[in-house]
Amino acid sequence: MLPYTLVIQHAAQVLTMAGGSAERPLAGPNLSSWTIIERGYVACVGDKIVAVGAMNELNLAHIGPETRLIDATGCVVMPGLVECHTHLVFGGNRADEFERKLRGESYLDILTSGGGILSTVRATRAASEAELLANALHHLEGFRRYGITTLEAKSGYGLDRDTELRLVRVAREAGHRQPVRVVPTFLGAHVVPPEFKEAGPRAYVDFMLREVLSDLKGEAAFVDVFCEQGAFPLAVARYYLEQAHKMGFGLKIHAEQLHDLGGCEMAAELGATSVDHCDYLTPAAAARIAQVSQGRTVAVLLPLVPLFLRQSQYAAGREFIDNGLPVALSTDFNPGSCPSKNLWLALSVACLKMGLRPKEAVAAATLNAAWAIGQQHDCGSLEPGKRADVLVLNVGSVAEIPYWLGENPVRDVVIGGQW
Amino acid sequence: MLPYTLVIQHAAQVLTMAGGSAERPLAGPNLSSWTIIERGYVACVGDKIVAVGAMNELNLAHIGPETRLIDATGCVVMPGLVECHTHLVFGGNRADEFERKLRGESYLDILTSGGGILSTVRATRAASEAELLANALHHLEGFRRYGITTLEAKSGYGLDRDTELRLVRVAREAGHRQPVRVVPTFLGAHVVPPEFKEAGPRAYVDFMLREVLSDLKGEAAFVDVFCEQGAFPLAVARYYLEQAHKMGFGLKIHAEQLHDLGGCEMAAELGATSVDHCDYLTPAAAARIAQVSQGRTVAVLLPLVPLFLRQSQYAAGREFIDNGLPVALSTDFNPGSCPSKNLWLALSVACLKMGLRPKEAVAAATLNAAWAIGQQHDCGSLEPGKRADVLVLNVGSVAEIPYWLGENPVRDVVIGGQW
Ligand SMILES: [Zn+2]
Ligand SMILES: [Zn+2]
Repeated sequence: MLPYTLVIQHAAQVLTMAGGSAERPLAGPNLSSWTIIERGYVACVGDKIVAVGAMNELNLAHIGPETRLIDATGCVVMPGLVECHTHLVFGGNRADEFERKLRGESYLDILTSGGGILSTVRATRAASEAELLANALHHLEGFRRYGITTLEAKSGYGLDRDTELRLVRVAREAGHRQPVRVVPTFLGAHVVPPEFKEAGPRAYVDFMLREVLSDLKGEAAFVDVFCEQGAFPLAVARYYLEQAHKMGFGLKIHAEQLHDLGGCEMAAELGATSVDHCDYLTPAAAARIAQVSQGRTVAVLLPLVPLFLRQSQYAAGREFIDNGLPVALSTDFNPGSCPSKNLWLALSVACLKMGLRPKEAVAAATLNAAWAIGQQHDCGSLEPGKRADVLVLNVGSVAEIPYWLGENPVRDVVIGGQW
Repeated sequence: MLPYTLVIQHAAQVLTMAGGSAERPLAGPNLSSWTIIERGYVACVGDKIVAVGAMNELNLAHIGPETRLIDATGCVVMPGLVECHTHLVFGGNRADEFERKLRGESYLDILTSGGGILSTVRATRAASEAELLANALHHLEGFRRYGITTLEAKSGYGLDRDTELRLVRVAREAGHRQPVRVVPTFLGAHVVPPEFKEAGPRAYVDFMLREVLSDLKGEAAFVDVFCEQGAFPLAVARYYLEQAHKMGFGLKIHAEQLHDLGGCEMAAELGATSVDHCDYLTPAAAARIAQVSQGRTVAVLLPLVPLFLRQSQYAAGREFIDNGLPVALSTDFNPGSCPSKNLWLALSVACLKMGLRPKEAVAAATLNAAWAIGQQHDCGSLEPGKRADVLVLNVGSVAEIPYWLGENPVRDVVIGGQW
C-alpha cells in the first residue's frame, strides 16, 4: 500500500455517515444510527479516503515523511457538505424586492407583476457569459468557506434556448475553475417566459423538449420542473418529466412549495431522484412516496425558504422521517426566495422548525444530499474509496453543529485530498 | 490639521447614521432617515474619525505618504456593529439540552428541572478564572469577525458574590486583551440560586444589594434583572432597581420575554437605559414607555431568541417604531436561549419577523445599540469625533445587508483606527 498523503487525526468525533445500506439513502432510524468514532482519524492517499478509524488503530507504517498531518484535537471531523439544490448562476440580485416583501407583497403577487423570477431572467439574459461566470465563482467561494465540497447548480433564469444552454455551460465551467465539484441540473421549465405567455406552459415545454434537451446530453444529468400555481400545472409537469425520462435524464421536481398539487407523488411514480421543497406534502403522501420509490426518492427539504418568505408552513420533516421517506437538506440558494449560502443555518432551522435531530440533519446534508444528486458513490460519507472531501469543525460534538445558530463551524476544508 | 492616518475611500455607500438628534436615540421616522453618502469616504486621525463625505469633497491636502488608504469600491462602509446585550462569560455549553428542547421540553420546564440557566451556573462556578477568560476571548474573536467593535457583557451565571464579581472582572479583562471594547453589566439577579430557594427572590436581591453592588462601583455601569415567571417577580425587580438606582447605577431589565408582567414599563418609569426582549410588550405600552422616558429608554429586541426557543411570538418591532419607541437589535448571545454571535442574522430576522426595514435594522444595531449601553458619544455612527470603528462590507447597498440571509458581509474591520 502507498503511504498516506494526508491524515486528519485526534478528532474528538469522526462523523462517518457509514453503517447504512449501500443500495439506498438513509431513511427512518438509519438516518441517525450511522457510526461516530470517538478519538478518530481519516487517512487519504491522493484524492481518495483509504482508512477511517479510532486513533489506536492508526497504522503508523503508512505514515512517512511526505504524509501531511492535520491535528483535529477537540474537533469534529466529517464529510464535506453536499449542497444538492442551488440556483447558482444568475445575474443581479433582488435586494430591492426584499423591502417590497417586508411591506406585505406576497411572492406570487410579485411574480405576477413581472417581478420575482422574471426580473432575474431579464438581468441574466442581459449579462455576459463572463459576468455570469464571475458571479458563479464568487458564490462558489462563499460556499467553499462553509465547507461545501459538492454542489448542484440549476439553470432556469434564461428561459430561452441560448441562455439556458449558457447557464449549464457556465455551471460546468465554474466547476472546472475551482475545487468544489459542480453538478448541473437543467431547469428550463422554471416558469413560463413572456415569449410563451399566450402559447402557454405546454407549448413551452414542447419547445424545450424539441429544441434544447437534445443538446444537453452529457451536459446535465437531471431535468427539473417547477410544479406550482403560476408556474407549471401537474399535467404539464408530468408530460415533460415523462418525455425527459425517455430521453435518458434523471428527474427532479420543485413541488408542494406553496400548495399541495400532488407534484411530489407524481414525480416519485416516474422514478424521480429527488422531490424538492415539500412544505405542503402530507405525511401520508410521504409514506406513499417511500413505498412507490422503494426508498430511493429523496425529499430535499429547504428550511430557509419559508423563513425568508415569511411563511409559517414548513415541511413536516419529523413525520417524513418517521414514515420512512429519505430526506436531504439544502439552502435552495437563489436571489428571490433564499439568498443564503449558509447551509449550517439550514441545518439549525431544520431542527427548530422541522423537528430533525442533530445526527439526522448532518446526514441529510451529506450522504442523503449526495443521493439526491446521484453522487452517493463519490462523496457524502467518510468511507474508503470515496473522494477525500473532509471538514474539520471548531466544535467538539455532533450536537453542537446545529446548536451554534447561524455560525460557520468550519476550521479546515479538504477537497479531493487537497487542504 | 494633522494628516489623515487612514482613509477608507470610493465606497458605493457610506452609512453614516448621522442626521438625528444628539439628545436621544433614533425613533419613529428618524430611525430610517439618517444620511447615506453615495461614493463616499471616511477619514481618521489616530483612533478618531475626523471627516466623512463624498469623494469629490475629500481634501487631498490631508493625505500624505503615511496615510493608509483602503479602497472600498463597490462596497458599503458603515460604523462597527454595537452588540448591546450578551451573556459573554460562562462555562460549558448547552448543546446537550438542545435535543431535549427538540423533543418538546419547554424552556421553563428545563429551568424548573434544574437545567437551563442553573446548569450553566454549575459549569461557570466550576470553571477557573483563566478558563472563563479563554472562553470569553474565543467568543470575542468570533464577534469581531462579524464586525462587532463594542460589546456589552453581562454577568449572571455566578449567582454568588465571588463568582459574580469574577464574571465582571473577566469581562473587563477580556476587553483589555483584544481590540473590541467591552462594557460590563451586572446581572447578579438573573435567577434565584439554589442557596436562596427557601429564602426567596427578595432575600436574594437584598443580599446582592448589601454584599455585592457596593463592590461594583466603577466596575459595571449598569444593573440588570430578569423579571419573569421562575425568575424575579415585578415587585422584587422594582425594589431592586430602585435601590440600584440610588446607588448610582444605570438600569436595565429583561422583561416581557415570555409573559406580559409589566416589567418594561416599570423600568422605564425608573429611568431605565434599556428594556430588553419585549416579545410580549404591547404596542400601547410601547407608546407609554416612549412618553414616560421622553424617548430615552431603548427597547432592545432579540429576534434570534424566539427563533431558537421555537416561539411564535416576536416583539412587535414595527408597531414599537410607529409608536415612537427607540429600538435596538442584539443577539442576546448566551448558551441557553441564543448560542449565536451572528448579529447580521438577527438583523435579517428582525426584518422578516418584526417588520423592520433594512435602514431601520442597521441603525438599531449601531447608533441605537450604542445608546442602549451609554456609548452614544463614543461609537455607533460615522461622525467626526467618534472612535474610528468602521466596517467595509462585501455588499453594494444597505438593502443587501439583511437580504443575504445568515451570511457575514464583513470584508474589513477597523477598530480605533487600527485595521
Ligand atoms: Zn429551487
Ligand atoms: Zn439576556
